[in-house]
Amino acid sequence: MGKVPHESIFDTPAVVIDEAKMQRNIDEMAETARASGVSLRPHVKTHKIPAIARRQVAAGAVGITVAKVSEAEVMAEGGIGDIFIAYPLVTETKIRRAIRLSGRARLILAVDSLEGASLMSAVAGSEGVVLEVRLEVDSGLRRTGVPRSEAVRLAREIATLQNLDVTGIYTYRGAVLEDGSPARDLAEAGRLEGEFMVAVAEGIRNAGVPIQDVSLGSTPTAEHAATVEGVTEIRPGTYVFYDRMQAQMGVCSIEECALRVMATVVSRPTPGLAVIDGGSKTFATDVQPNVTPLDLAGFGLVVGHPEAVLDRVTEEHGMLSLDEGSGLEVGDTVEIIPNHVCSTVNLHEEVYLRSGDEDVETLRVAARGMVR
Amino acid sequence: MGKVPHESIFDTPAVVIDEAKMQRNIDEMAETARASGVSLRPHVKTHKIPAIARRQVAAGAVGITVAKVSEAEVMAEGGIGDIFIAYPLVTETKIRRAIRLSGRARLILAVDSLEGASLMSAVAGSEGVVLEVRLEVDSGLRRTGVPRSEAVRLAREIATLQNLDVTGIYTYRGAVLEDGSPARDLAEAGRLEGEFMVAVAEGIRNAGVPIQDVSLGSTPTAEHAATVEGVTEIRPGTYVFYDRMQAQMGVCSIEECALRVMATVVSRPTPGLAVIDGGSKTFATDVQPNVTPLDLAGFGLVVGHPEAVLDRVTEEHGMLSLDEGSGLEVGDTVEIIPNHVCSTVNLHEEVYLRSGDEDVETLRVAARGMVR
Repeated sequence: MGKVPHESIFDTPAVVIDEAKMQRNIDEMAETARASGVSLRPHVKTHKIPAIARRQVAAGAVGITVAKVSEAEVMAEGGIGDIFIAYPLVTETKIRRAIRLSGRARLILAVDSLEGASLMSAVAGSEGVVLEVRLEVDSGLRRTGVPRSEAVRLAREIATLQNLDVTGIYTYRGAVLEDGSPARDLAEAGRLEGEFMVAVAEGIRNAGVPIQDVSLGSTPTAEHAATVEGVTEIRPGTYVFYDRMQAQMGVCSIEECALRVMATVVSRPTPGLAVIDGGSKTFATDVQPNVTPLDLAGFGLVVGHPEAVLDRVTEEHGMLSLDEGSGLEVGDTVEIIPNHVCSTVNLHEEVYLRSGDEDVETLRVAARGMVR
Repeated sequence: MGKVPHESIFDTPAVVIDEAKMQRNIDEMAETARASGVSLRPHVKTHKIPAIARRQVAAGAVGITVAKVSEAEVMAEGGIGDIFIAYPLVTETKIRRAIRLSGRARLILAVDSLEGASLMSAVAGSEGVVLEVRLEVDSGLRRTGVPRSEAVRLAREIATLQNLDVTGIYTYRGAVLEDGSPARDLAEAGRLEGEFMVAVAEGIRNAGVPIQDVSLGSTPTAEHAATVEGVTEIRPGTYVFYDRMQAQMGVCSIEECALRVMATVVSRPTPGLAVIDGGSKTFATDVQPNVTPLDLAGFGLVVGHPEAVLDRVTEEHGMLSLDEGSGLEVGDTVEIIPNHVCSTVNLHEEVYLRSGDEDVETLRVAARGMVR
């Protein structure tokens, strides 16, 4: 890391992206997908910025993944022509918005229930279109996604609906990592997830539904799932920046983390405490230290200050516990690698893309806060 | 609660404020302050919306409190003329912005260190202005604020600075509540905080610094602190909407909570699980169930569905654990009272102010995401 830029460039808190590191991350994942012969369709939830999505496509991605219709609208507006909304749309409002958007970009939608699929088909019929859909399958995370035991039945039912074209299945990732397995298990986790999905796809095809795509997400496991015969697509997101959680899982090194939050020490009330000008409005709290199975001390990693731990946050205050002899003083700037970068970016209106100490571009997080 | 409005009014997730409840909360706190003879200067971090700040002032507040210069700028633009930035400004950039703003509104700034105060005085001097400041005192929360033992010394030092006018002291709240004391302790907590601050103020006055204002924050304790002789101002924030955490502390009833998040069930993969279209991007995670000392089951309270607990969230998914026999189906709408309303509002671009099923106003959360 070079010297900290003068405050006239970055008032704090500021989210700063190292352009070279980010581009390397983008290129390496594209190469990983190419080497395994699978498509790359990155989830843009990590950056939420069309200009970065365009870099991913330029590096070889076939398109992008989003979770919300509103995110798809922002990305289509930003020049992305192939979008998978990997989230079940079950209301008429959202389905109609998606149909409107499908006039401007290739759109793939998601289903995981007959109720949702039936409504989608009916709305599509009323608008005279056929929608391409993928069936979400739960691989162990216990959120959306049909259980494996019902996947074939549901796929067949959906295939009978007039205005839906079922072209594939998808999942995010399984429970293997949810119990905090160490890094040496990532390869096996990815392989198991890939084999699981390929087997589900075979069952569906054997039942007479000729699906093509077998798509898996997740930065930690995607490269391993990609090596499984029959997997056709991966949808990692976090790799564009990486973060401390990924480093802790062994997915990347701390040096590969391309995004940092700059903050200023505003108070030094006692020898063991420094307070910075960012708390839970600046650093996401969805991955909590000492709660997640990962061994994360604090809400982020304070770069170059092993004596400082960001161990408490309130909305606007970040409390750094300091070992004796810390040189941090009021007015000093620190750089912090967030635990979870996706949810951290979602808190910020804009980020700075830095290719040199003086060469800084401001990017608006255009798809931030798109909850619908 | 009346019937759920049709989705054509609210696509979900949607933050919906009950206008009548909010106005009652605003009026009652104004009356509480009046009855105790103290000024009310609400912290607007809870709503971040100028129109609601104007209601607070109309009800009797002397002005507002914010944490950031950017928030002050938005509120001044929105017609608020008296603003306390209750956060130490320690960089030239922010101090100059505050000085620019002080031409448009009465501005009170905060200091808690000689380094910060010296810089503030120097910048003020260079611009030919005198700034009104309050000294922040730590009452037990261990974040910003000078320790009591150093308050008198620091107040005297700051009083010697040419371009600062020290007019008061302030604190947020003490540690009494941090250990999860039950509601019966709130009155004592507020009284102790008030007495603590009055004693600190007396010490400072006795040392020759004639401060006027003794200001305390916090919805749970403000009304009790207000009754202490010598306390001049309270700065509660959350009371405007209240939330589940406040209800759990005994500060309000669940019925007084004026803000709910509407969400839609998008998936029912198993009998015990319903997934809604809002996760950690919709419900703040800074107050975590089973981590906070409060007995909060889940990330929010599902109104009218005691059988459902929002016990897991990922960014876009909220997992409701269901007892057997829940009637929730795909497409159903639920209303959820968030654990922590301030940080939840900060996630949303806009909220809906509802005075009837058909009478709905969209309000932009204009000071959302103002981290600087």
